[in-house]
Amino acid sequence: MRLIESVAEMQDWAWQQRRHGRAIGFVPTMGYLHEGHVSLMRLARERADQVVASIFVNPMQFGPKEDLAAYPRDLERDKALCEAAGVDVIFHPSVEEIYPAGYQTQITVPAVAAPLCGASRPEHFGGVATVCCKLFNCVQPNFAVFGAKDFQQLMVVTRMVADLNLPVEIVAGPTVREADGLAMSSRNVYLTASERAEAPIIQRTLAEARALVAAGETRRDTVLALVRERLAGASLGRVDYVDLRKIPNLEAADEFPTGRHLLAVAVFFGRARLIDNQVLDFAITD
Amino acid sequence: MRLIESVAEMQDWAWQQRRHGRAIGFVPTMGYLHEGHVSLMRLARERADQVVASIFVNPMQFGPKEDLAAYPRDLERDKALCEAAGVDVIFHPSVEEIYPAGYQTQITVPAVAAPLCGASRPEHFGGVATVCCKLFNCVQPNFAVFGAKDFQQLMVVTRMVADLNLPVEIVAGPTVREADGLAMSSRNVYLTASERAEAPIIQRTLAEARALVAAGETRRDTVLALVRERLAGASLGRVDYVDLRKIPNLEAADEFPTGRHLLAVAVFFGRARLIDNQVLDFAITD
Repeated sequence: MRLIESVAEMQDWAWQQRRHGRAIGFVPTMGYLHEGHVSLMRLARERADQVVASIFVNPMQFGPKEDLAAYPRDLERDKALCEAAGVDVIFHPSVEEIYPAGYQTQITVPAVAAPLCGASRPEHFGGVATVCCKLFNCVQPNFAVFGAKDFQQLMVVTRMVADLNLPVEIVAGPTVREADGLAMSSRNVYLTASERAEAPIIQRTLAEARALVAAGETRRDTVLALVRERLAGASLGRVDYVDLRKIPNLEAADEFPTGRHLLAVAVFFGRARLIDNQVLDFAITD
Repeated sequence: MRLIESVAEMQDWAWQQRRHGRAIGFVPTMGYLHEGHVSLMRLARERADQVVASIFVNPMQFGPKEDLAAYPRDLERDKALCEAAGVDVIFHPSVEEIYPAGYQTQITVPAVAAPLCGASRPEHFGGVATVCCKLFNCVQPNFAVFGAKDFQQLMVVTRMVADLNLPVEIVAGPTVREADGLAMSSRNVYLTASERAEAPIIQRTLAEARALVAAGETRRDTVLALVRERLAGASLGRVDYVDLRKIPNLEAADEFPTGRHLLAVAVFFGRARLIDNQVLDFAITD
């Protein structure tokens, strides 16, 4: 496994691979890897000749009051996990390498980035779209894998790639969960023991909503009311949002939704803001 | 010479060329070609195995009160000029092909785009940066050629390419002029005969400023005052701006500039807004 820290070396390596007709699969991460990231690397490994994982805590996607400085890091452990998952190259640039003096270009995906997490993190998805475009130009992958846990991120990147005609396929990897249902996240380390014990209420609630829709519920407001009521029962949790949105562009759901929708929630547990989601397939009625 | 109208076909063609190790040179244009564009195509022809010119009047770079609908077009004449200049492929997509329903991604280069033409055309250079990024991803050129007449555009695109790590070299082609010094522009067709007769005052004034600096003038304000005074003598012209800016990021010039600066002007003559510029090399004194 090779560690590359400069953009020029990363691009040179990528050109060599492409010239030899080798398909590159890419997993962008902010490090502090867990089983969720590893599952994306395995997914890339199945389809690609060469797998690149990037580890870059991107300052541009953190707000001024967010946890950039405190974001957890452990490069040595990350290297071992990448090696075990069959990664060929770790791209680990410095902040100065990605944003040198004079840097100023911004990419925005205004409509997809506006609701859900974008409402409380107005700069976040612009920072995500910008760094992903940059990383794609460094790594030149045939495809890139993103976890479905960060579903809005997946939709923002998918939209950006289509809109800018980037020759990269975006592949979604399923959310990986702890045994009790909590979605894996690097931010779970912020949870106290009692918060950790209560947090699986999020996934249980989403599963209940899915069952409700599968049983024939057709009203948006009934589904949202159920989720809000259940989450209100979390004594240590404070709901940031509960929302139902159309896939892929995340417009507000109609009163009687039809087809694929995203049920998305964000809940604060102490220092941690946990997000999770469930795709709901509403029956098309006449 | 081949005419390509779809993004997918353009990308397929580009991949074929790159796979065979052929270097692609690219000249993006809005059509209604003149000798200035042709000089850029010849410049590309000298260095590339394959030359692509795009003809696309980009709605995103026109303001709501600008001349999008009236912008001059003549595809048959453009094809003949491209063929004669040795172009291999004309990329001529429709507006719907470049901006399909749901399109929303925007690229901005805020600081370089802010002064000069950006001050009166606030959305213009974002539209230029966005469409150039898209066109580069369609054509996948090794290098792209831009005319120095649109110097701020050249700096915006250069900055965007560096910031987004796009693997494209940006090459500047010198401004091509009519016999009397007027910079060639598709918008010169808007000039009446009397405006056309007076318009070369722009280039004469820029040349006078260059001579002044070459003779040792070191004060920003003296150079700008000369230019403003001379242009005030154009009875049919109305100055939009006269400015001196640092190269490449177009920060305001110091009172006693040193090194390479851009002297840039925009002057309305009737319906036409004409721009021109002169790079000034101020002596480094101690």
